[in-house]
Amino acid sequence: MTRFSLNQWTTRHWPMPDLLAGCAAAGVDVGLWREPVAEYGLTRTAKLVQEHGLTVTSLCRAGFFQRPDALEDNRRAIEETAALGAPVLCLVSGGLPEGSRDVDGARSRVADLLAELAPYAGEHGVQLALEPLHPMYCSDRCVVSTLAQALDMAAPFSPTQVGVMVDTYHLWWDPAVWDGIARAGAEDRIALFQVADWVTPLPEGVLTGRGMLGDGCVELRRFREAVDATGYTGPIEVEIFNDELWAMPGPAALDLALSRFAQHVV
Amino acid sequence: MTRFSLNQWTTRHWPMPDLLAGCAAAGVDVGLWREPVAEYGLTRTAKLVQEHGLTVTSLCRAGFFQRPDALEDNRRAIEETAALGAPVLCLVSGGLPEGSRDVDGARSRVADLLAELAPYAGEHGVQLALEPLHPMYCSDRCVVSTLAQALDMAAPFSPTQVGVMVDTYHLWWDPAVWDGIARAGAEDRIALFQVADWVTPLPEGVLTGRGMLGDGCVELRRFREAVDATGYTGPIEVEIFNDELWAMPGPAALDLALSRFAQHVV
Repeated sequence: MTRFSLNQWTTRHWPMPDLLAGCAAAGVDVGLWREPVAEYGLTRTAKLVQEHGLTVTSLCRAGFFQRPDALEDNRRAIEETAALGAPVLCLVSGGLPEGSRDVDGARSRVADLLAELAPYAGEHGVQLALEPLHPMYCSDRCVVSTLAQALDMAAPFSPTQVGVMVDTYHLWWDPAVWDGIARAGAEDRIALFQVADWVTPLPEGVLTGRGMLGDGCVELRRFREAVDATGYTGPIEVEIFNDELWAMPGPAALDLALSRFAQHVV
Repeated sequence: MTRFSLNQWTTRHWPMPDLLAGCAAAGVDVGLWREPVAEYGLTRTAKLVQEHGLTVTSLCRAGFFQRPDALEDNRRAIEETAALGAPVLCLVSGGLPEGSRDVDGARSRVADLLAELAPYAGEHGVQLALEPLHPMYCSDRCVVSTLAQALDMAAPFSPTQVGVMVDTYHLWWDPAVWDGIARAGAEDRIALFQVADWVTPLPEGVLTGRGMLGDGCVELRRFREAVDATGYTGPIEVEIFNDELWAMPGPAALDLALSRFAQHVV
């Protein structure tokens, strides 16, 4: 199906060769994650991707700028993205250092590291996708919390080097999100569009509670139309962290995602 | 201690007469909740408050505008607030109706009901405090998610009738919160200031995971200074939903809150 891309974490237990074969058979693109790529082998993964004639829409994820080795690790991630032929590297900025209350400082560090990494990304033909995560992750995962904030942080850089991620799960609640999407399009910053639905109650730790498309309260089609209205014609990645989905066999999860995508997104 | 007010939900299992006696003995104000007030009796509570010479800083909470009986229930809450001699009624707007994806519609309904209620509040000498709740509550508790949004919704009304709540737990992550506080002050909208800290991991349902002052990552003193800088001289309510705190005897919880307040807020 055109524009549909299966983010690997949606079917995280599907072994790499089966995932790639499954996506190729279904005629869909794939978004990969660094950990399973490393486990299977970067070169081996790139080779298999090529053999299947697959398009890798993104590599998830680098960032986590509060870690001491962040610069080096992010450079490696840029190289991995290029090796996979993916145009986009997803960046989750990281939260506050342990025991810190300095959220402004953590945000400054994101700006500083983007300045270091943007040219390196450019040299490798990779666009960094700075991802605003839902504010419930601000302290421990991502101090970038709104689309407007991500666009402000991306502003000093060329859009070919630093764009933003538009993910319905993280942004749906924001009354300013429609203005943000229009602005992101006007500034040519939409690096990637990801979809997942919002369901409650949230589980402990709030990490694995994303909803299958159509199961929650997000106006998914309105988001897709708003993103499209800016001129974005790129892939739409389905990225859902959900224990029930993870318990399903990969092909069944992909089928379900494809059918819900047709029903609720396009 | 001056300006400290104990929000009743911080010590929610402390029986009403003991809570009121405890606050009077400690020389602090109190913020009450409708359910325990109804249980103990509105007239009886008001009488006991008066006998202790206590100041009731607010009544929590009305709102929940998606419910069919919202208008009537909110009118009753305004009357209860006036009967207790409290200046402020806290409003939590409510989330989406069951099965709805219409967040814009839910927000419009908030605006419509505020227009109905504001004059009634004014007649009773009560200020409504529209409270932005953390975006993680947007679908099921409160479609008002940021201070800027709350101020926009309050704008059509007199500040004596509709103000906003500034609660550190809900707002700390927002990069625009400092501008929002300055604006709230300039527009004379700060009805009440509440403090709690942000700690992770969040528990299932994310309702009872608020942190005792100083246990988390919120810049509490910076918030207090920002609120004070607008000219706000009103009470500072300590409102913490936390299972461990609820397991403590009321007097011990109050002592702990007072000591942490001195250490981290004033």
